[in-house]
Amino acid sequence: MARGYFISLEGGEGAGKTTLQSGLAKALKARGLAVTCTREPGGTPGAEAIRDLLLTGSNDRWSPMSEALLFYAARVDHIERVIAPALERGEWVICDRFADSTSAYQGAAGGVPSKRLMALHDAALGGFAPDLTLVVDLDPRTGLERTVERGEDATRFENFDLDFHHRLRQAFLDIAKDEPDRCAVLDGTQAPDTLLARALDLIRERLLAPAA
Amino acid sequence: MARGYFISLEGGEGAGKTTLQSGLAKALKARGLAVTCTREPGGTPGAEAIRDLLLTGSNDRWSPMSEALLFYAARVDHIERVIAPALERGEWVICDRFADSTSAYQGAAGGVPSKRLMALHDAALGGFAPDLTLVVDLDPRTGLERTVERGEDATRFENFDLDFHHRLRQAFLDIAKDEPDRCAVLDGTQAPDTLLARALDLIRERLLAPAA
Repeated sequence: MARGYFISLEGGEGAGKTTLQSGLAKALKARGLAVTCTREPGGTPGAEAIRDLLLTGSNDRWSPMSEALLFYAARVDHIERVIAPALERGEWVICDRFADSTSAYQGAAGGVPSKRLMALHDAALGGFAPDLTLVVDLDPRTGLERTVERGEDATRFENFDLDFHHRLRQAFLDIAKDEPDRCAVLDGTQAPDTLLARALDLIRERLLAPAA
Repeated sequence: MARGYFISLEGGEGAGKTTLQSGLAKALKARGLAVTCTREPGGTPGAEAIRDLLLTGSNDRWSPMSEALLFYAARVDHIERVIAPALERGEWVICDRFADSTSAYQGAAGGVPSKRLMALHDAALGGFAPDLTLVVDLDPRTGLERTVERGEDATRFENFDLDFHHRLRQAFLDIAKDEPDRCAVLDGTQAPDTLLARALDLIRERLLAPAA
């Protein structure tokens, strides 16, 4: 049985990652593929407990370095118990946020030096990485408006100031530029169907065609 | 105002660290010194919440790498909010367990490669380290018997098998041997008063005399 593919979806708040995830899962399943959808932080009972620590409470509940360590603790649990076993079974795994979110939120936008984050990443994960990362790019004003319209309770990060969210957007674009083989940027202003079609094109080009 | 000294107490379960900590605090306060006593995991609201995740639940609740990351998340919070500010105020800080416990529990006894733990340590803490580490050495059978006699609820780690606790003891001895300038080993079979007197001798020799 061939190993499955691991796709991560990245981007700011309200960029459309969750809608894209369900669209991708539906399209891949329609091709007869087994798909596991999951999200970070979370995806296991332990990681969901850590998620509660991370996403609730006041803005200054954690320093960016403590946050980064909590995210990696949850991530290791999630990889060991969900992502790696699913890939071993030959399933495709689509994860709403992964390590690039830590680089963007706690690193570029939060101020943890990127050298320390990279060392932490390597220590925690070794070489484990997505086969494809889709960055959904959107002006943070538009994204935050969408989260308000959805009427969800704001997470700690949504309450950070707009300047934080602008640094975040730039951070994701920089990551995609630095790792073009792994990453691709999608325009989050597109209609959900157009966004999905473009994402499926990328999956065909980058994952299915080379494997065929 | 001169920076205070940071002393960590290390060793297996029931070795006598907590009794030694109160004895040291009393003796140092009697000399007119300001002392902060704290413990790991814990010491801040955030770190105590992480402590609950770490010390409760089944033995396999976390993998050793997830555990190590949770301990460092708690440790960074504890340093930033309690230990470093107290040292800046000129206080002595005595901490029941610190980073050597992660090296021993999750590394030597838990199986996380020491290179990855050292990289994690440097990424999370930079060069921050205790001025003196007192390792209280005791046969794990005796230590675990003491924790049963105290009638406390067993933590997850106390429930690990005896072989784990033997590896733990050896790990602390190895750390002390590798870093003799920072560490000293105390014989945990000694009566509490004798143990305290020996610890105070070491503090005089290593910290007070050189500073005088």
